[in-house]
Amino acid sequence: MPCKLPKKIDRVVKVGILGLGTVGSGAAKILIEHSDLIALRAMPIKLIRVVDKDIPKAQKLLDSLGLNDIPVSDNWQDLVNDDSIDIMIEVVGGIQMPYEAISAALKKGKSVVTANKDLIASHGGELLSIAEEFATDLFFEASVAGGIPIIQVMKESLAANRFVQIMGIVNGTTNYILTSMAEKGASFEEALQEAQKLGYAEADPTNDVEGYDAARKIAILASIAFNSRVTDDMVPVEGITHISDWDIKYATEFGYVIKMLGIAKEDENGIEVRVHPAMIPQSHPLASVRDSFNAIFVEGDVLGEAMFFGRGAGSLPTGSAIVGDVIAAARNICHNSKSRWGCTCFMEKKVKTIDQTNSKYYVRIKVFDQPGVFAAITKILGEENVSMDSVMQKRRISEDKAEIVLVTHQVNHADMMRSIDRIRNLSCVANIANIIRVEEREA
Amino acid sequence: MPCKLPKKIDRVVKVGILGLGTVGSGAAKILIEHSDLIALRAMPIKLIRVVDKDIPKAQKLLDSLGLNDIPVSDNWQDLVNDDSIDIMIEVVGGIQMPYEAISAALKKGKSVVTANKDLIASHGGELLSIAEEFATDLFFEASVAGGIPIIQVMKESLAANRFVQIMGIVNGTTNYILTSMAEKGASFEEALQEAQKLGYAEADPTNDVEGYDAARKIAILASIAFNSRVTDDMVPVEGITHISDWDIKYATEFGYVIKMLGIAKEDENGIEVRVHPAMIPQSHPLASVRDSFNAIFVEGDVLGEAMFFGRGAGSLPTGSAIVGDVIAAARNICHNSKSRWGCTCFMEKKVKTIDQTNSKYYVRIKVFDQPGVFAAITKILGEENVSMDSVMQKRRISEDKAEIVLVTHQVNHADMMRSIDRIRNLSCVANIANIIRVEEREA
Repeated sequence: MPCKLPKKIDRVVKVGILGLGTVGSGAAKILIEHSDLIALRAMPIKLIRVVDKDIPKAQKLLDSLGLNDIPVSDNWQDLVNDDSIDIMIEVVGGIQMPYEAISAALKKGKSVVTANKDLIASHGGELLSIAEEFATDLFFEASVAGGIPIIQVMKESLAANRFVQIMGIVNGTTNYILTSMAEKGASFEEALQEAQKLGYAEADPTNDVEGYDAARKIAILASIAFNSRVTDDMVPVEGITHISDWDIKYATEFGYVIKMLGIAKEDENGIEVRVHPAMIPQSHPLASVRDSFNAIFVEGDVLGEAMFFGRGAGSLPTGSAIVGDVIAAARNICHNSKSRWGCTCFMEKKVKTIDQTNSKYYVRIKVFDQPGVFAAITKILGEENVSMDSVMQKRRISEDKAEIVLVTHQVNHADMMRSIDRIRNLSCVANIANIIRVEEREA
Repeated sequence: MPCKLPKKIDRVVKVGILGLGTVGSGAAKILIEHSDLIALRAMPIKLIRVVDKDIPKAQKLLDSLGLNDIPVSDNWQDLVNDDSIDIMIEVVGGIQMPYEAISAALKKGKSVVTANKDLIASHGGELLSIAEEFATDLFFEASVAGGIPIIQVMKESLAANRFVQIMGIVNGTTNYILTSMAEKGASFEEALQEAQKLGYAEADPTNDVEGYDAARKIAILASIAFNSRVTDDMVPVEGITHISDWDIKYATEFGYVIKMLGIAKEDENGIEVRVHPAMIPQSHPLASVRDSFNAIFVEGDVLGEAMFFGRGAGSLPTGSAIVGDVIAAARNICHNSKSRWGCTCFMEKKVKTIDQTNSKYYVRIKVFDQPGVFAAITKILGEENVSMDSVMQKRRISEDKAEIVLVTHQVNHADMMRSIDRIRNLSCVANIANIIRVEEREA
């Protein structure tokens, strides 16, 4: 026997979309094509207005979805001032205009759903206080890891946990590039070009390959996990442009995989947030996350280890997260329970500087092949409190040069960097070819 | 700047636990030890009563948590009749008594949180209608896959999706056994004994190894995914006791891993739900889920592929899900928004019989090594509409016998079984050593 339909919600919840680009059109498509399913599962939700700077293009897209009677304009105020609209979806991207539009919409009591990671990672706190003040909702599930539910999961389902760490593959472009380098033996440049050809990387890939995009996402997750505001400018980043085929070969040999990670941890000394490529054990759940997929690995003190895997980008996956938020916002409207949970940064915790963090490190050093090289290097490491897990001379690279690869135990970053500076200046050292963190528990 | 604390909820939400066993004591521990964190993130939640059949043991446990002033009794009616209790946690297991206690609590308007998969998979519909009628909540996140958030995720975060399929490793015992067989070369019996020694398998392992436990969980997930009631008795099950080391060796050779899966699919012909061991490609996200871990692979029409991985059992992981539900129920109480979402089985869809399902099949046949064997087998398969993907003579097993292993394309189950019956009766066939489904998209 099917269950009785719940107390029918007759009210139609009305939605306006600001920005009908890739993500906005995905959300529109879902709202239209799944309107029956959504009405059945929750309540009728109707798209009634669109704002986009390219009116003819937006109109054409709406026509193709069978929605030729929807007003389209290029001024966000038309949406904010339409008092019949309950929920505004903001998917234009950027900071200035979305900030103005979202704060104006919240002040009118509208619920707002956004995919704008740049805005949330930098101004999320201010916008959430406006939402709080005007007793309405600002949801942003789509701002991190596209279609993967993680923000509601951390705020609600996992609310019983003290979070120990979050490690995320939250940038599909860099994951695609690193997978391609590891599996096809491509160089960074070749893999990047391939990613650009497939539309996974932009013409200017800086935001992705230098880690700025991942920094925004891990800042958002860290803020939620530790109940303390972390903005993107507090996240040290290191890109993947320096990863070479040799690093990937050695990683494989040591039993590791190289992944671009957003990492957030908390211990008794504070919060630690960083973005950089790292070697992780091949048996780690994140190691099998390939191509442009995203995944968030979460460790909670009572949950233990968990991972959430899926599509981190794309019109429909991101649309899935946006429409999920729209449905949640609509439920809050219909049940008079807006502001059930808003900002969760109730505390102000210390964020460590990068020099205060600890990690294992992989170091690849090119040396002149002469007696005493090992001794000179290990002497410096010892003096700087850097203890070694393993060290080996890997290969001769020319008549007089060889390569040494070492992996340290957990050591302090400042100690590590100081010892590297000293090693670089040794007369027997040609250069430091690379330094990559190793994220692995000590046995 | 930390955000302002939200409108302080002064009300203390009061909780009673029915059953202080492994899971109940995990939930109690979290409620006590994380009470400050929970109060900060949501509102004060207080455990005020416990019911357990072993009063001295329960009292001792509460003492160890510093809660010696909490009333303990062995009658569930004491909890249900305590009007100060807002939320009842039911973690005794079984059907009869929990059914009575939960329905009585719901009728009193209490919210109920349960981990009871047996009860939800068989009587969930009735209990959810009682919750609906008395305008209260019945939550059961912990009933499927322990600490992994999946029920709220499917009901809320992914509500914009038409679900295409759910494939779950939802039984940690069988996953542990199959991992041990694959990685350590253990036989089924050895792996089972090891699992029993480690506490992963019960003395009577029937529920786990024959698939009944997984059937309950996939029935619950199928009901949510397809908005139509699927009870555990509608799920055909097949256990893992017939999996041999040779099947595992051949699986590896073909590029597969054998996993015990709960599968739920929907197409234009209806819903399909089943539990059985299956070969999946080594590149499938579920293939890397090892040991006693659980994972749910979800395919939504707009989300695409996603996977949720974590601990499917254990006191604290399951406690994490229970307390997460308690917090959600408490929010609904404090925001006057109980019954935000209840039963979601609004439709009554056709569930296919096993004979109506399609799959690829791996078949291992022991034959008398004589001319015409291949021809006789392939003739039958052709006559029964079973087309083959690959077939090979794998090894000589004695002077006069050999083993043939074949993998079919997607074929109808009834056709497959009919052809197997005919092949079994061939004079050149000694016996059918095994038949295992292969869950893989056709290229």
